[in-house]
Amino acid sequence: MTLGPKTPRGQITMNRIIKAAETEFGRKGYYNTGINDIAQRAKVASGTIYLYFSDKYSLYVHLLTQYGHRIRKEIGKQTANCQTRYEYEREGLLAFLRLVKKRPHMYNIIWESLYIDPKLFVDYYETFAAKYAEQLDQASDEIIEIDSTVMAYCLMGISNFLGLKYVFFDKEADLEYVVDEAMKFLRLGMLTKP
Amino acid sequence: MTLGPKTPRGQITMNRIIKAAETEFGRKGYYNTGINDIAQRAKVASGTIYLYFSDKYSLYVHLLTQYGHRIRKEIGKQTANCQTRYEYEREGLLAFLRLVKKRPHMYNIIWESLYIDPKLFVDYYETFAAKYAEQLDQASDEIIEIDSTVMAYCLMGISNFLGLKYVFFDKEADLEYVVDEAMKFLRLGMLTKP
Repeated sequence: MTLGPKTPRGQITMNRIIKAAETEFGRKGYYNTGINDIAQRAKVASGTIYLYFSDKYSLYVHLLTQYGHRIRKEIGKQTANCQTRYEYEREGLLAFLRLVKKRPHMYNIIWESLYIDPKLFVDYYETFAAKYAEQLDQASDEIIEIDSTVMAYCLMGISNFLGLKYVFFDKEADLEYVVDEAMKFLRLGMLTKP
Repeated sequence: MTLGPKTPRGQITMNRIIKAAETEFGRKGYYNTGINDIAQRAKVASGTIYLYFSDKYSLYVHLLTQYGHRIRKEIGKQTANCQTRYEYEREGLLAFLRLVKKRPHMYNIIWESLYIDPKLFVDYYETFAAKYAEQLDQASDEIIEIDSTVMAYCLMGISNFLGLKYVFFDKEADLEYVVDEAMKFLRLGMLTKP
């Protein structure tokens, strides 16, 4: 369970704890990280952490939920002025790749949920996909006739695997180039003879 | 290090050990699985395992390498008579989804490499992508002009995320339907107005 901070100063402390948890979980993994490690990095007493989170698991779940929100919020911000679905997908993909570049621990932390509690992992992706499919349904006049959940998972797969390759594996990749190439596929399909 | 079996009977024992390791790693994860658990499930003495594998890590690496080979081999088999790239991608995707349905532990075991040794994880996907991109290059007359590594990662992302959703999350999904929907995207792109 997460307990909200009562004061602005409390919010600052809570954010420091969350940031420290992100670094520790990202580097050492959930199982190798103790509340003490997080407290040390956040420069607070272990007891302070328990003012905000009932245990390590709650802190992890909070971080995971926050990631989902943050990714959607960032994509929303970067696509606010997009006029077409093409632009939306392009700017959305670029925003996602740039965000994971800034937060390289995200992959480790999100995927580790599979080993902490598979339900968390399922919920994370199902929530993300449901919102994506809803958007695709709303833009149905610009999109081919296709099952929007299948389409959402295809697009999430593309974003995640391009992130793996061009953020996680190749740290110097030109993300604009990668997105332009991927957009050819989204626009035309992969085959010359449809 | 992996030591090859010296006799046919040795091969049978080795296979039993590998199968037991797959079940144990898949259910409990790498870190929670001991050589003893694997020995017990395989009905061999722990010492017998060390005749074939120098340690738990080697056994895990063997399994991971075998997965890459097995996936490619299975896709190769199911696509042997395909005439067009469309057919190849369709049958390949279906073969992949059916294989992970038969081997539900594959996801857990492959992705856990990220937490055991990130190099294993990178190698696994880079090897897979390199071979995929090579195939795409060979079929370049049937494929739009696109960076074949970007394309390979897009296709791997699609397969993996459709597997997550329709094998791992929804265990009753109609895989033929899912593949037909996904193929619309591969054939036409996602947009009505290119």
